[in-house]
Amino acid sequence: MFNIYYFCNNFLSNKKLDNIMDFEYIRKTPLYSAMSELGKRIFLPDGIFYWSGRAKKEAELIGTIGTAFAFEKDFIDGGSLDEWVPCYLEDFKDYSSLNIKSIVTYAPIGGIGDLREIWKKWILKKSKYDAKTEEDKLKLLEKAITTPVVTQGITNGIFMICSFLLNPGDYIICPNKRWGNYDNVINKHIGANFRSFEFFLNGKINIEGLKEAIEDVAKKQNKIIIILNFPNNPTGYCPTKEEVKQIIETLKDSLKKIQLPFVVLVDDAYEPFIYSEEALERSIFYDLLNIEGDLIPIKLDGISKELLAYGGRVGFITIGLKPEWVENDNELEILKKEVNNKLEGMNRSSISNTNHFYQAVTLKMFEEKGMDMIIQKRNKIKLLLKERYEKINSELASIQNADISVDPNSGGFFLFINLNPNKILATKFADHLLTKYKCGVIPIEKLQDNINGIRIAYCSIDLKNIPEFIKRIKLALNDY
Amino acid sequence: MFNIYYFCNNFLSNKKLDNIMDFEYIRKTPLYSAMSELGKRIFLPDGIFYWSGRAKKEAELIGTIGTAFAFEKDFIDGGSLDEWVPCYLEDFKDYSSLNIKSIVTYAPIGGIGDLREIWKKWILKKSKYDAKTEEDKLKLLEKAITTPVVTQGITNGIFMICSFLLNPGDYIICPNKRWGNYDNVINKHIGANFRSFEFFLNGKINIEGLKEAIEDVAKKQNKIIIILNFPNNPTGYCPTKEEVKQIIETLKDSLKKIQLPFVVLVDDAYEPFIYSEEALERSIFYDLLNIEGDLIPIKLDGISKELLAYGGRVGFITIGLKPEWVENDNELEILKKEVNNKLEGMNRSSISNTNHFYQAVTLKMFEEKGMDMIIQKRNKIKLLLKERYEKINSELASIQNADISVDPNSGGFFLFINLNPNKILATKFADHLLTKYKCGVIPIEKLQDNINGIRIAYCSIDLKNIPEFIKRIKLALNDY
Repeated sequence: MFNIYYFCNNFLSNKKLDNIMDFEYIRKTPLYSAMSELGKRIFLPDGIFYWSGRAKKEAELIGTIGTAFAFEKDFIDGGSLDEWVPCYLEDFKDYSSLNIKSIVTYAPIGGIGDLREIWKKWILKKSKYDAKTEEDKLKLLEKAITTPVVTQGITNGIFMICSFLLNPGDYIICPNKRWGNYDNVINKHIGANFRSFEFFLNGKINIEGLKEAIEDVAKKQNKIIIILNFPNNPTGYCPTKEEVKQIIETLKDSLKKIQLPFVVLVDDAYEPFIYSEEALERSIFYDLLNIEGDLIPIKLDGISKELLAYGGRVGFITIGLKPEWVENDNELEILKKEVNNKLEGMNRSSISNTNHFYQAVTLKMFEEKGMDMIIQKRNKIKLLLKERYEKINSELASIQNADISVDPNSGGFFLFINLNPNKILATKFADHLLTKYKCGVIPIEKLQDNINGIRIAYCSIDLKNIPEFIKRIKLALNDY
Repeated sequence: MFNIYYFCNNFLSNKKLDNIMDFEYIRKTPLYSAMSELGKRIFLPDGIFYWSGRAKKEAELIGTIGTAFAFEKDFIDGGSLDEWVPCYLEDFKDYSSLNIKSIVTYAPIGGIGDLREIWKKWILKKSKYDAKTEEDKLKLLEKAITTPVVTQGITNGIFMICSFLLNPGDYIICPNKRWGNYDNVINKHIGANFRSFEFFLNGKINIEGLKEAIEDVAKKQNKIIIILNFPNNPTGYCPTKEEVKQIIETLKDSLKKIQLPFVVLVDDAYEPFIYSEEALERSIFYDLLNIEGDLIPIKLDGISKELLAYGGRVGFITIGLKPEWVENDNELEILKKEVNNKLEGMNRSSISNTNHFYQAVTLKMFEEKGMDMIIQKRNKIKLLLKERYEKINSELASIQNADISVDPNSGGFFLFINLNPNKILATKFADHLLTKYKCGVIPIEKLQDNINGIRIAYCSIDLKNIPEFIKRIKLALNDY
């Protein structure tokens, strides 16, 4: 691997940087065909970065750096005599023990380099591939995926990649039960449309519905864009191992039949929180990557839920490329640089870069504590949630009422109870439950999408309160 | 003021929240006419926020909160017995002394409420209006501006407000010498166009060029959108008090003549760094706000340069409304809520919210240290930059060469030297300067825009190196 990078960097330094921005290799890929007009035109110009990069290496006197620098003693009482540092207000030091440079200076446009590399290793680890028996899969994974680009949280990752792919008016395929903010991002903001399909059929994922949606969209546009989110918000659904096989087979068949580029956005926000042994205990991203042909999985994950740092706004976009799109490993590296340039262009032109503190902290946690220690500590929290998941499902199972049904769920933070819309409207029910029984839930009432039910966030209900919570729901139901 | 809020909140709680989303008042304003299709359609749906807000107030058992909560003892060894807290990884505590809740939880969509209020006070303070002699202006200012909405840095503020206003193909008026990233945000990302005008004429701002640009754009579209950036990147230009008067008069005249809504985006990134007494020592935002009629100034500022916290990604969007657009103070408050809903809708649908740590730190610095202390500490840095500004301009004045000219400059981090394009091309000159004289600068060569010169970031050059820096430029010039 080292040799490839070495060769490649040498090779690139002999080409003009401009050439990367010709996007010679990306143009040949199905990813290019799947891009929106924005995706096709965006890039990160070299200008300032080229010249400041050269100045760092070649200059004795540098007048390229657009942040104020000085000797610390000249602006901080008792500052170090000889250290030439970014000018900062010393009060920042009161709030963090990190080196001031990790607090006040810009992080790179695509994210801190070491953090991006560590997150790539984290993605390899999350595959749970066995290093001995599944070495081939691990190698392909490492080779095929881009180095993750840092975005301002997973929402921002979704926004970025959707604008990168969808023109206003384009269709994206998504189950009808989805995170409400998808509609804000994709429909209200970008102006693209959902091709929804009924998520479940007889307590399983509605494979036929997914297939129909693909066939329908194939008639409308020259690319298939799908977004999946397991564990799902709002239902808590994670596909079983058997269902994953069916999804993969369906996509393979459709891909063969339809011959358009397929992009599958994998919203892995809740990735580690899977509680049932029947469910596939890793992201579907990995299985998607093993599909041959023009199917491009894109992984969207981040620290929000994985490290329980919602307010950190650190997300990652990682694209699964296919080595067969290019001739050799060198071209694959150039292709990755082209993709990286476009994604950094998206960042530069909308957020500039992601905040430094949380990136630095995440990097330090990985470096100083290690992945296994992070997982071990997080497992305590996962176990709490698993107990609640088991309790709330067993309590709900005790309700005998033909007008309700609980969607299949085995992970994440939520579950979803469907209400019979002919008898109980979700909004009225939530109001009744709150007013009479002092129980707060989120109703989702989108009758045109065949949704009428309540989302319960058991992630924030203590185990011992769950029986009472469900009892009150039962009482409220009995009022109807 | 308190009474108005009180009345208004009471009044609003009796109206359905939906009614705010009818945007009854905003529709009557010129701001609405200036919005893009995106601006017109975007809003923050009440759904989850309405129900979780009610649950907080009315429920005994809450199942609405989408972040994991538990008793601390259940997931942290030695955790407090009875505290019901967001589940977190304790390692985060190693990197900051802030309360863990200010690190791991989400900040509100529009930013931390207290921070937004304090930043509004900060904007009042930055007006430098005298509380006694200019009480009227202060009062109007407080009344007219919205409570700042927090964005992920000023770039993100520019991106947000430009998408909010500009459709693809629309024109925005801007001097030809501008921050290069404007082109990425506005042209490459949003797909809107620049109507550039030559920034300077005879060492002053080219008022006639601005006027022509406005008249030209008025023929093409039904709104005038202008972006100004003082102190300017790359030139360091700040208008003198006299020039500000001319700009204001020009805008007044054009507004009267053209009768279209005018929006002036004021990019105040470098706001406090003004070094000359001839320059207006505050943002032009305040003077723009005092123009009567349908001219809407929008202030874009943030901690990046103001608090020298570039990596914090905390910016603010503040809109100057006109009280005369509505009947009374209550309606003005509703109008502000409508505007706020739309801007929070922009946030929710692209970044969700801004990182918590830097917002919390900024708030604490204002609360614990106070505005005056912040200014006092920052003034040490400002003084360093001012000395460099004086030195570099005096050194440059000693160069006698008809093929170069320095743009007017009196603030910010940079200055700009124009080169005669018939003799010296900027890119070649920068290369020569770097290769032969080991001096790094950023060349800007956009001949079609009549720009050919080099930007010197004296913000990062030590005072004692400035004479040598300019000497080498002189030597390099002599090679031509």
